[in-house]
Amino acid sequence: MTDIKTVFVTGGAGYIGSHCVLSLLEAGYDVVAIDNFTNSVGKEQTAASLDRVRRITGKEITFYKCDLLDVQQLDEIFDKHKFDCVIHFAAVKSVGESMKQPLKYYKNNIIGAMNLLEVMASHGCYQLVFSSSCTVYGNPSSLPITESHPTGNITNVYGRTKYFIEEILRDVANSEKRWNIVSLRYFNPIGAHSSGLIGEDPTTNFSNLMPYIAQVALGKKPSLSIYGGDYATPDGTGIRDYVHVMDLAEGHVAALKKLQSKHLHLQVYNLGSGQGTSVLDFIKTFEKVTGIKVPYTIEARREGDIASMYANCDFAKFDLGWTAKYTLEDMCRDSWKWQTMNPNGYKSNDTASMNGKADGH
Amino acid sequence: MTDIKTVFVTGGAGYIGSHCVLSLLEAGYDVVAIDNFTNSVGKEQTAASLDRVRRITGKEITFYKCDLLDVQQLDEIFDKHKFDCVIHFAAVKSVGESMKQPLKYYKNNIIGAMNLLEVMASHGCYQLVFSSSCTVYGNPSSLPITESHPTGNITNVYGRTKYFIEEILRDVANSEKRWNIVSLRYFNPIGAHSSGLIGEDPTTNFSNLMPYIAQVALGKKPSLSIYGGDYATPDGTGIRDYVHVMDLAEGHVAALKKLQSKHLHLQVYNLGSGQGTSVLDFIKTFEKVTGIKVPYTIEARREGDIASMYANCDFAKFDLGWTAKYTLEDMCRDSWKWQTMNPNGYKSNDTASMNGKADGH
Repeated sequence: MTDIKTVFVTGGAGYIGSHCVLSLLEAGYDVVAIDNFTNSVGKEQTAASLDRVRRITGKEITFYKCDLLDVQQLDEIFDKHKFDCVIHFAAVKSVGESMKQPLKYYKNNIIGAMNLLEVMASHGCYQLVFSSSCTVYGNPSSLPITESHPTGNITNVYGRTKYFIEEILRDVANSEKRWNIVSLRYFNPIGAHSSGLIGEDPTTNFSNLMPYIAQVALGKKPSLSIYGGDYATPDGTGIRDYVHVMDLAEGHVAALKKLQSKHLHLQVYNLGSGQGTSVLDFIKTFEKVTGIKVPYTIEARREGDIASMYANCDFAKFDLGWTAKYTLEDMCRDSWKWQTMNPNGYKSNDTASMNGKADGH
Repeated sequence: MTDIKTVFVTGGAGYIGSHCVLSLLEAGYDVVAIDNFTNSVGKEQTAASLDRVRRITGKEITFYKCDLLDVQQLDEIFDKHKFDCVIHFAAVKSVGESMKQPLKYYKNNIIGAMNLLEVMASHGCYQLVFSSSCTVYGNPSSLPITESHPTGNITNVYGRTKYFIEEILRDVANSEKRWNIVSLRYFNPIGAHSSGLIGEDPTTNFSNLMPYIAQVALGKKPSLSIYGGDYATPDGTGIRDYVHVMDLAEGHVAALKKLQSKHLHLQVYNLGSGQGTSVLDFIKTFEKVTGIKVPYTIEARREGDIASMYANCDFAKFDLGWTAKYTLEDMCRDSWKWQTMNPNGYKSNDTASMNGKADGH
């Protein structure tokens, strides 16, 4: 392992990436971030989310617009800086789109990861934290899910890209002992930073539950469609493990500290709350926190959806000293604050002036 | 489906590729082949194996030296010809090397396949036969293996690339109904064309049993190392399903005929003999056919090796009308003929004059 000072963050302008960059800066790391804005609606040239992170933290972030498929640019960035560790968030991430355009997903996510690994190795950087997902467990055979649950039999292409990359990481780590890799399997990240200045851009992800509910609560959609009311769960709706994005961000800081203290080779950790929450329970909590009624209808199940999925996070607690601190109420409150302060996401009118302020730091 | 006249063959100069090109020509197809000679020792510019196929068949083959990672050249070849079907053999294939250089394997095999799929789709060619492998079954849970045996839990990187590509093909076929794909899961191809003019280049693959035995029989190696004599098999040595490469080649012709007659979407077939043969049985047969004693020693098992693996090929018989015709004696005889006629593979002294003859066709 190498002492970690400067961290290279791919997909740093994204939802989880921007929150993680914030936590990294607060923990005293230097951050160089890239993003290709592929998950954004417009054709941004600057990262509005990172401008706001600068504003919140009062710290600088070096940022490049860069696509991981552009090996030459990536190589130049590694030539310019000395990175002690990489956190790799960059990925296309819509489950629905991944089924319609599988090659787009395989190319972006898998070739992107391979290019990153090659450029890292050629620059002597062997420490990596990878954004994995609970989707690698497929349809769980036992609950709660520990890290030893088998992976594979994935229900969608997006999840398959995460699974393939985990397998590639394992093979790479086995072939070259200098690699020191953590793969973090996120459960369902929601919430936002308590400032309300950064969050999940509501203009780009309608299919996940929280952005969808928020759209309904904002009056932008008439009602919430719940897919499946006849699952073998207490109230018939799907059960997930929601985890606050700031808890996730702190999980990455904990992973960096672990990588600094020990050569792990390759280690996998679940990051979740450890609590299963049904869609109906979620709605009740959201309504309680916001005071807004969320009308819903029960629709047919969606193909590939799983009845119930929640984590056992004992290993992250034991080995990383990490545990999720925020409650579902916190997640709903913070998501809602972000949504109401930024009903159009980062496309709001004040972005330009914020850029001005941030640049002034 | 589209009527098939012109077939594009990737990896056409390789062991299975060259035998398949021969069968395709004999069945009346026009062939355009590419190869990057990555599995060859030298830096060939022309395909010696295909020169010999021209000589055997008296037919022309259009050949380009091309790497599937060079999308632009691939695109130009598709612009120049109209392909009705593609047979995709091109791959790096050494199990041992794949564990040491996993990224080389993932990049070549997976990106190569994705590039091919994209260029095919952009040129309206949706018919494909893919070279898969019985390694996709991992360590078998039941024998003989049918196509419905679960895939995954692969024991080596090479096999994982085949498995990943099969998964990608399934997703691609599900996303676009025009795709008409056959994946052929080969068991253990050995043997050579009865002319002795083409075969598995003994200078590039020592780890497989047949080339290894032949090296010993030729006196180039002192004895054969058998890895594992304590498996739960009748004589303690590993059991495999050896299939004559000309049977395999005919399997590809049968697959083309099937694709012409029916829209399969994506269909998988085992191609094997259906017979399990132990290493000791194999040696006995080889000694009987060649009259040469093969000294051997029993060594420790190799990590990742499987005790026993053989196919149930009823589905290929039923659906393709294909069945393996050659016996193990045939395979040993034909391999040995190739080996003795070409002790240095395609690097033998007469290659140049053969090129001359072939070019004269």
